[in-house]
Amino acid sequence: MKVIVIGGTGVIGSAVADALSGTHEVIRVARKGGDLHADIASKDLLERLFAEAAPFDAVVSCAGSGAFKPLDQLTDEDFAYSLFDKLMGQVNVLRTAAKHISNGGSITLTSGVLASEPMPGSGAISLVNAGPEGFGRAAALELRGRVRVNVVSPPWVSETLSAMGMDHSGGMPAAEVAKAYVKSVEDGSLTGQVIDARAVVSA
Amino acid sequence: MKVIVIGGTGVIGSAVADALSGTHEVIRVARKGGDLHADIASKDLLERLFAEAAPFDAVVSCAGSGAFKPLDQLTDEDFAYSLFDKLMGQVNVLRTAAKHISNGGSITLTSGVLASEPMPGSGAISLVNAGPEGFGRAAALELRGRVRVNVVSPPWVSETLSAMGMDHSGGMPAAEVAKAYVKSVEDGSLTGQVIDARAVVSA
Repeated sequence: MKVIVIGGTGVIGSAVADALSGTHEVIRVARKGGDLHADIASKDLLERLFAEAAPFDAVVSCAGSGAFKPLDQLTDEDFAYSLFDKLMGQVNVLRTAAKHISNGGSITLTSGVLASEPMPGSGAISLVNAGPEGFGRAAALELRGRVRVNVVSPPWVSETLSAMGMDHSGGMPAAEVAKAYVKSVEDGSLTGQVIDARAVVSA
Repeated sequence: MKVIVIGGTGVIGSAVADALSGTHEVIRVARKGGDLHADIASKDLLERLFAEAAPFDAVVSCAGSGAFKPLDQLTDEDFAYSLFDKLMGQVNVLRTAAKHISNGGSITLTSGVLASEPMPGSGAISLVNAGPEGFGRAAALELRGRVRVNVVSPPWVSETLSAMGMDHSGGMPAAEVAKAYVKSVEDGSLTGQVIDARAVVSA
Protein backbone atom coordinates (compact mmCIF):
# COMPACT_ATOMS: atom_id res chain seq x y z
CA MET A 1 0.00 0.00 0.00
CA LYS A 2 0.98 3.63 -0.42
CA VAL A 3 0.51 5.28 2.97
CA ILE A 4 0.72 9.01 3.72
CA VAL A 5 1.78 9.75 7.30
CA ILE A 6 1.06 13.34 8.29
CA GLY A 7 3.18 14.51 11.20
CA GLY A 8 5.60 11.89 9.92
CA THR A 9 8.63 13.53 11.53
CA GLY A 10 7.08 13.83 15.01
CA VAL A 11 7.51 11.43 17.91
CA ILE A 12 4.50 9.24 17.15
CA GLY A 13 4.40 9.89 13.40
CA SER A 14 8.00 8.82 12.79
CA ALA A 15 7.43 5.63 14.77
CA VAL A 16 4.32 4.93 12.68
CA ALA A 17 6.21 5.64 9.44
CA ASP A 18 9.06 3.36 10.57
CA ALA A 19 6.64 0.58 11.51
CA LEU A 20 4.87 0.74 8.13
CA SER A 21 8.03 1.12 6.01
CA GLY A 22 8.91 -2.56 5.99
CA THR A 23 5.81 -3.60 4.08
CA HIS A 24 4.39 -0.41 2.57
CA GLU A 25 5.46 2.61 0.56
CA VAL A 26 5.42 5.46 3.10
CA ILE A 27 5.27 9.18 2.35
CA ARG A 28 6.23 11.28 5.39
CA VAL A 29 4.50 14.67 5.51
CA ALA A 30 5.46 17.50 7.85
CA ARG A 31 5.37 21.28 7.98
CA LYS A 32 9.15 21.18 7.56
CA GLY A 33 11.28 18.16 6.66
CA GLY A 34 9.62 14.95 5.47
CA ASP A 35 9.00 13.91 1.86
CA LEU A 36 6.12 16.33 1.26
CA HIS A 37 4.91 19.38 3.16
CA ALA A 38 1.54 20.37 4.59
CA ASP A 39 -0.06 21.89 7.67
CA ILE A 40 -3.29 20.29 8.87
CA ALA A 41 -4.60 23.72 9.92
CA SER A 42 -4.66 24.62 6.20
CA LYS A 43 -7.25 22.89 4.06
CA ASP A 44 -5.67 24.42 0.93
CA LEU A 45 -2.26 22.90 1.67
CA LEU A 46 -3.89 19.52 2.34
CA GLU A 47 -5.85 19.69 -0.94
CA ARG A 48 -2.60 20.32 -2.78
CA LEU A 49 -0.83 17.53 -0.89
CA PHE A 50 -3.42 14.86 -1.65
CA ALA A 51 -3.82 15.90 -5.29
CA GLU A 52 -0.05 15.64 -5.69
CA ALA A 53 0.31 12.34 -3.80
CA ALA A 54 -2.64 10.50 -5.47
CA PRO A 55 -3.12 7.64 -6.02
CA PHE A 56 -2.71 6.46 -2.40
CA ASP A 57 -4.37 3.86 -0.20
CA ALA A 58 -4.10 5.11 3.36
CA VAL A 59 -3.67 8.35 5.30
CA VAL A 60 -2.56 8.53 8.92
CA SER A 61 -2.77 11.85 10.75
CA CYS A 62 -0.45 12.10 13.76
CA ALA A 63 -0.35 15.90 13.68
CA GLY A 64 -2.04 18.59 15.73
CA SER A 65 -1.51 20.30 19.03
CA GLY A 66 -3.42 22.28 21.62
CA ALA A 67 -2.87 24.57 24.59
CA PHE A 68 -2.05 22.91 27.92
CA LYS A 69 -2.88 25.39 30.72
CA PRO A 70 -5.02 25.60 33.85
CA LEU A 71 -8.63 26.46 33.08
CA ASP A 72 -8.43 29.96 34.52
CA GLN A 73 -5.39 30.78 32.37
CA LEU A 74 -6.77 29.48 29.06
CA THR A 75 -7.50 32.47 26.83
CA ASP A 76 -9.91 32.74 23.90
CA GLU A 77 -6.83 32.56 21.68
CA ASP A 78 -5.69 29.32 23.34
CA PHE A 79 -9.07 27.74 22.59
CA ALA A 80 -9.12 29.08 19.03
CA TYR A 81 -5.61 27.76 18.37
CA SER A 82 -6.50 24.32 19.79
CA LEU A 83 -9.74 24.13 17.80
CA PHE A 84 -8.15 25.08 14.51
CA ASP A 85 -5.00 23.02 14.87
CA LYS A 86 -5.72 19.72 16.60
CA LEU A 87 -9.49 19.51 16.11
CA MET A 88 -10.25 21.04 12.70
CA GLY A 89 -6.89 19.67 11.56
CA GLN A 90 -8.24 16.12 11.87
CA VAL A 91 -11.48 17.19 10.17
CA ASN A 92 -9.54 18.87 7.35
CA VAL A 93 -7.42 15.76 6.77
CA LEU A 94 -10.49 13.59 6.43
CA ARG A 95 -12.49 15.92 4.22
CA THR A 96 -9.64 16.51 1.78
CA ALA A 97 -8.16 12.99 1.77
CA ALA A 98 -11.59 11.40 1.17
CA LYS A 99 -11.76 13.07 -2.27
CA HIS A 100 -8.50 11.55 -3.50
CA ILE A 101 -8.02 8.24 -1.67
CA SER A 102 -8.37 4.92 -3.52
CA ASN A 103 -11.53 2.89 -3.02
CA GLY A 104 -11.15 0.53 -0.09
CA GLY A 105 -8.55 2.82 1.50
CA SER A 106 -8.36 3.97 5.11
CA ILE A 107 -8.04 7.22 7.01
CA THR A 108 -6.72 7.18 10.58
CA LEU A 109 -7.07 10.23 12.81
CA THR A 110 -5.60 10.90 16.27
CA SER A 111 -7.37 11.80 19.50
CA GLY A 112 -5.65 11.17 22.84
CA VAL A 113 -6.17 9.67 26.26
CA LEU A 114 -6.91 13.10 27.77
CA ALA A 115 -10.29 13.01 25.98
CA SER A 116 -11.57 10.60 28.61
CA GLU A 117 -8.88 10.68 31.31
CA PRO A 118 -8.20 14.37 32.01
CA MET A 119 -5.51 15.92 34.16
CA PRO A 120 -5.22 19.41 35.59
CA GLY A 121 -4.39 21.73 32.69
CA SER A 122 -5.99 19.56 30.00
CA GLY A 123 -9.25 21.52 29.54
CA ALA A 124 -8.57 22.64 25.96
CA ILE A 125 -6.71 19.46 25.02
CA SER A 126 -9.45 17.19 26.40
CA LEU A 127 -11.94 19.21 24.33
CA VAL A 128 -10.01 18.89 21.07
CA ASN A 129 -9.11 15.24 21.70
CA ALA A 130 -12.73 14.25 22.30
CA GLY A 131 -14.08 16.04 19.21
CA PRO A 132 -12.27 13.90 16.60
CA GLU A 133 -13.64 10.73 18.24
CA GLY A 134 -17.22 11.86 17.63
CA PHE A 135 -16.37 13.11 14.15
CA GLY A 136 -14.46 9.98 13.15
CA ARG A 137 -17.33 7.70 14.13
CA ALA A 138 -19.80 9.80 12.14
CA ALA A 139 -17.54 10.08 9.08
CA ALA A 140 -16.94 6.31 9.11
CA LEU A 141 -20.68 5.73 8.90
CA GLU A 142 -21.09 7.94 5.84
CA LEU A 143 -18.00 6.61 4.07
CA ARG A 144 -18.68 2.94 4.83
CA GLY A 145 -18.01 0.76 1.78
CA ARG A 146 -15.71 3.32 0.21
CA VAL A 147 -13.11 4.28 2.86
CA ARG A 148 -12.50 3.00 6.38
CA VAL A 149 -12.15 5.64 9.13
CA ASN A 150 -10.71 5.04 12.61
CA VAL A 151 -9.35 7.23 15.39
CA VAL A 152 -6.33 6.17 17.44
CA SER A 153 -6.19 7.36 21.04
CA PRO A 154 -2.56 7.36 22.19
CA PRO A 155 -1.60 7.51 25.87
CA TRP A 156 1.30 9.63 27.10
CA VAL A 157 4.37 8.66 25.09
CA SER A 158 7.65 7.89 26.91
CA GLU A 159 9.79 9.94 24.50
CA THR A 160 7.50 12.96 24.93
CA LEU A 161 7.62 12.73 28.72
CA SER A 162 11.45 12.50 28.61
CA ALA A 163 11.63 15.53 26.33
CA MET A 164 9.47 17.43 28.85
CA GLY A 165 11.89 16.47 31.62
CA MET A 166 9.28 14.22 33.23
CA ASP A 167 9.44 10.62 34.40
CA HIS A 168 9.06 8.57 31.24
CA SER A 169 8.12 5.37 33.08
CA GLY A 170 4.43 6.37 33.07
CA GLY A 171 4.45 6.56 29.28
CA MET A 172 4.32 4.06 26.43
CA PRO A 173 7.22 3.92 23.92
CA ALA A 174 6.25 5.45 20.55
CA ALA A 175 7.12 2.17 18.79
CA GLU A 176 4.41 0.44 20.85
CA VAL A 177 1.86 3.21 20.24
CA ALA A 178 2.57 2.83 16.51
CA LYS A 179 1.05 -0.67 16.56
CA ALA A 180 -2.44 0.81 16.93
CA TYR A 181 -1.96 2.87 13.76
CA VAL A 182 -0.61 -0.15 11.89
CA LYS A 183 -3.67 -2.12 12.96
CA SER A 184 -5.98 0.64 11.71
CA VAL A 185 -4.18 0.71 8.32
CA GLU A 186 -3.90 -3.06 7.83
CA ASP A 187 -7.08 -4.52 9.38
CA GLY A 188 -9.60 -4.32 6.55
CA SER A 189 -12.50 -5.09 8.89
CA LEU A 190 -11.90 -2.11 11.17
CA THR A 191 -13.94 1.05 10.71
CA GLY A 192 -15.72 3.58 12.94
CA GLN A 193 -13.53 2.59 15.88
CA VAL A 194 -11.74 4.63 18.52
CA ILE A 195 -8.66 2.48 19.12
CA ASP A 196 -7.06 2.79 22.56
CA ALA A 197 -3.37 2.20 21.83
CA ARG A 198 -2.90 0.60 25.23
CA ALA A 199 -5.48 -2.08 24.41
CA VAL A 200 -3.75 -3.00 21.15
CA VAL A 201 -0.41 -3.61 22.86
CA SER A 202 -1.89 -5.62 25.72
CA ALA A 203 -4.14 -7.65 23.39
CA MET B 1 -31.31 26.69 45.27
CA LYS B 2 -31.26 29.44 42.66
CA VAL B 3 -30.77 27.74 39.29
CA ILE B 4 -30.08 29.44 35.96
CA VAL B 5 -31.35 27.45 32.97
CA ILE B 6 -29.82 28.65 29.70
CA GLY B 7 -31.90 27.71 26.69
CA GLY B 8 -34.76 27.75 29.16
CA THR B 9 -37.42 28.33 26.52
CA GLY B 10 -36.28 25.46 24.27
CA VAL B 11 -37.72 21.94 24.17
CA ILE B 12 -35.31 20.42 26.68
CA GLY B 13 -34.58 23.63 28.63
CA SER B 14 -38.22 24.41 29.35
CA ALA B 15 -38.79 20.83 30.57
CA VAL B 16 -35.73 21.18 32.84
CA ALA B 17 -36.93 24.55 34.14
CA ASP B 18 -40.41 23.09 34.78
CA ALA B 19 -38.97 20.07 36.60
CA LEU B 20 -36.81 22.27 38.86
CA SER B 21 -39.45 24.94 39.53
CA GLY B 22 -41.27 22.99 42.22
CA THR B 23 -38.34 23.00 44.62
CA HIS B 24 -35.96 25.68 43.36
CA GLU B 25 -35.92 29.29 42.22
CA VAL B 26 -35.45 29.04 38.46
CA ILE B 27 -34.21 31.80 36.12
CA ARG B 28 -34.95 31.01 32.47
CA VAL B 29 -32.41 32.47 30.05
CA ALA B 30 -32.84 32.64 26.27
CA ARG B 31 -31.77 34.79 23.35
CA LYS B 32 -35.35 36.05 23.22
CA GLY B 33 -38.07 35.49 25.81
CA GLY B 34 -37.22 34.05 29.20
CA ASP B 35 -36.45 35.99 32.38
CA LEU B 36 -32.97 37.12 31.31
CA HIS B 37 -31.23 37.19 27.94
CA ALA B 38 -27.94 35.79 26.70
CA ASP B 39 -26.40 33.94 23.80
CA ILE B 40 -23.89 31.20 24.63
CA ALA B 41 -21.86 32.10 21.55
CA SER B 42 -21.08 35.45 23.25
CA LYS B 43 -18.79 35.35 26.26
CA ASP B 44 -19.50 39.04 26.90
CA LEU B 45 -23.25 38.48 27.15
CA LEU B 46 -22.69 35.52 29.49
CA GLU B 47 -20.36 37.58 31.70
CA ARG B 48 -23.06 40.23 31.99
CA LEU B 49 -25.74 37.59 32.66
CA PHE B 50 -23.88 35.90 35.51
CA ALA B 51 -22.76 39.16 37.10
CA GLU B 52 -26.39 40.32 37.08
CA ALA B 53 -27.83 37.02 38.32
CA ALA B 54 -25.29 36.40 41.13
CA PRO B 55 -25.54 34.98 43.71
CA PHE B 56 -26.71 31.65 42.25
CA ASP B 57 -26.11 27.97 43.00
CA ALA B 58 -26.48 26.10 39.75
CA VAL B 59 -26.28 26.68 36.02
CA VAL B 60 -27.74 24.35 33.42
CA SER B 61 -26.89 24.88 29.75
CA CYS B 62 -29.39 23.35 27.34
CA ALA B 63 -28.49 25.71 24.50
CA GLY B 64 -26.40 25.33 21.38
CA SER B 65 -26.87 23.98 17.90
CA GLY B 66 -24.84 22.73 14.98
CA ALA B 67 -25.15 21.98 11.28
CA PHE B 68 -26.78 18.70 10.28
CA LYS B 69 -25.70 17.82 6.72
CA PRO B 70 -24.00 15.02 4.82
CA LEU B 71 -20.21 15.14 5.13
CA ASP B 72 -19.63 16.20 1.52
CA GLN B 73 -22.05 19.12 1.90
CA LEU B 74 -20.68 20.49 5.20
CA THR B 75 -18.89 23.77 4.44
CA ASP B 76 -16.15 25.48 6.42
CA GLU B 77 -18.85 27.89 7.59
CA ASP B 78 -21.01 25.00 8.85
CA PHE B 79 -18.12 23.72 10.93
CA ALA B 80 -17.25 27.20 12.21
CA TYR B 81 -20.87 27.85 13.21
CA SER B 82 -21.13 24.49 15.01
CA LEU B 83 -17.83 25.01 16.83
CA PHE B 84 -18.68 28.50 18.01
CA ASP B 85 -22.28 27.83 18.95
CA LYS B 86 -22.69 24.36 20.43
CA LEU B 87 -19.09 23.58 21.37
CA MET B 88 -17.53 26.88 22.48
CA GLY B 89 -20.95 27.83 23.84
CA GLN B 90 -20.64 25.13 26.50
CA VAL B 91 -17.06 26.19 27.20
CA ASN B 92 -18.12 29.83 27.48
CA VAL B 93 -20.88 28.99 29.95
CA LEU B 94 -18.49 27.11 32.19
CA ARG B 95 -15.67 29.66 32.08
CA THR B 96 -17.93 32.60 32.84
CA ALA B 97 -20.29 30.91 35.33
CA ALA B 98 -17.36 29.51 37.34
CA LYS B 99 -16.33 33.07 38.32
CA HIS B 100 -19.69 33.95 39.82
CA ILE B 101 -21.25 30.73 41.10
CA SER B 102 -21.57 30.05 44.84
CA ASN B 103 -19.15 27.63 46.48
CA GLY B 104 -20.51 24.11 46.32
CA GLY B 105 -22.60 24.94 43.25
CA SER B 106 -22.93 22.96 40.05
CA ILE B 107 -22.61 23.55 36.32
CA THR B 108 -24.34 21.17 33.90
CA LEU B 109 -23.47 21.22 30.20
CA THR B 110 -25.12 19.38 27.29
CA SER B 111 -23.60 17.01 24.78
CA GLY B 112 -25.83 14.55 22.89
CA VAL B 113 -26.15 10.94 21.89
CA LEU B 114 -24.73 11.65 18.43
CA ALA B 115 -21.31 12.04 20.07
CA SER B 116 -21.04 8.30 20.36
CA GLU B 117 -23.93 7.01 18.22
CA PRO B 118 -23.69 8.86 14.91
CA MET B 119 -26.14 8.86 12.02
CA PRO B 120 -25.67 9.93 8.41
CA GLY B 121 -25.45 13.74 8.42
CA SER B 122 -24.17 14.06 11.97
CA GLY B 123 -20.46 14.72 11.22
CA ALA B 124 -20.38 18.27 12.57
CA ILE B 125 -22.89 17.57 15.35
CA SER B 126 -21.05 14.45 16.52
CA LEU B 127 -17.87 16.56 16.64
CA VAL B 128 -19.37 19.34 18.73
CA ASN B 129 -21.29 16.92 20.96
CA ALA B 130 -18.16 14.92 21.81
CA GLY B 131 -16.01 17.95 22.59
CA PRO B 132 -17.98 19.14 25.66
CA GLU B 133 -17.74 15.65 27.18
CA GLY B 134 -13.93 15.82 27.17
CA PHE B 135 -13.97 19.44 28.34
CA GLY B 136 -16.50 18.82 31.11
CA ARG B 137 -14.50 15.96 32.60
CA ALA B 138 -11.33 18.08 32.57
CA ALA B 139 -13.02 21.15 34.04
CA ALA B 140 -14.61 19.05 36.80
CA LEU B 141 -11.17 17.86 37.84
CA GLU B 142 -9.80 21.39 38.18
CA LEU B 143 -12.89 22.76 39.93
CA ARG B 144 -13.31 19.81 42.31
CA GLY B 145 -14.14 20.99 45.83
CA ARG B 146 -15.45 24.32 44.59
CA VAL B 147 -18.01 23.57 41.86
CA ARG B 148 -19.39 20.31 40.47
CA VAL B 149 -19.38 19.91 36.68
CA ASN B 150 -21.35 17.31 34.72
CA VAL B 151 -22.41 16.86 31.11
CA VAL B 152 -25.85 15.47 30.22
CA SER B 153 -26.11 13.50 26.99
CA PRO B 154 -29.72 13.60 25.80
CA PRO B 155 -31.06 11.18 23.18
CA TRP B 156 -33.42 12.27 20.42
CA VAL B 157 -36.35 14.03 22.06
CA SER B 158 -39.92 13.07 21.06
CA GLU B 159 -41.11 16.67 20.78
CA THR B 160 -38.17 17.55 18.50
CA LEU B 161 -38.83 14.57 16.24
CA SER B 162 -42.51 15.53 16.02
CA ALA B 163 -41.60 19.12 15.15
CA MET B 164 -39.34 17.78 12.37
CA GLY B 165 -42.24 15.75 11.02
CA MET B 166 -40.55 12.48 12.00
CA ASP B 167 -41.82 9.48 13.96
CA HIS B 168 -41.62 10.55 17.58
CA SER B 169 -41.81 7.00 18.96
CA GLY B 170 -38.01 6.63 18.69
CA GLY B 171 -37.49 9.63 20.96
CA MET B 172 -37.71 10.26 24.70
CA PRO B 173 -40.19 12.84 26.04
CA ALA B 174 -38.43 16.04 27.18
CA ALA B 175 -39.91 15.65 30.67
CA GLU B 176 -38.05 12.33 30.99
CA VAL B 177 -34.79 13.77 29.63
CA ALA B 178 -35.10 16.55 32.21
CA LYS B 179 -34.59 14.02 35.02
CA ALA B 180 -30.91 13.69 34.10
CA TYR B 181 -30.43 17.45 34.51
CA VAL B 182 -32.29 17.43 37.83
CA LYS B 183 -30.01 14.63 39.03
CA SER B 184 -26.92 16.63 38.03
CA VAL B 185 -28.19 19.70 39.91
CA GLU B 186 -29.39 17.90 43.03
CA ASP B 187 -26.96 15.00 43.56
CA GLY B 188 -24.13 16.59 45.53
CA SER B 189 -21.85 13.59 44.99
CA LEU B 190 -21.93 13.79 41.20
CA THR B 191 -19.08 15.52 39.36
CA GLY B 192 -16.98 14.84 36.25
CA GLN B 193 -19.70 12.60 34.83
CA VAL B 194 -21.21 12.31 31.38
CA ILE B 195 -24.81 11.39 32.23
CA ASP B 196 -26.66 9.39 29.58
CA ALA B 197 -30.25 10.58 30.03
CA ARG B 198 -31.55 7.15 28.98
CA ALA B 199 -29.71 5.51 31.86
CA VAL B 200 -31.21 7.88 34.44
CA VAL B 201 -34.76 7.11 33.38
CA SER B 202 -34.25 3.35 33.24
CA ALA B 203 -32.31 3.28 36.53
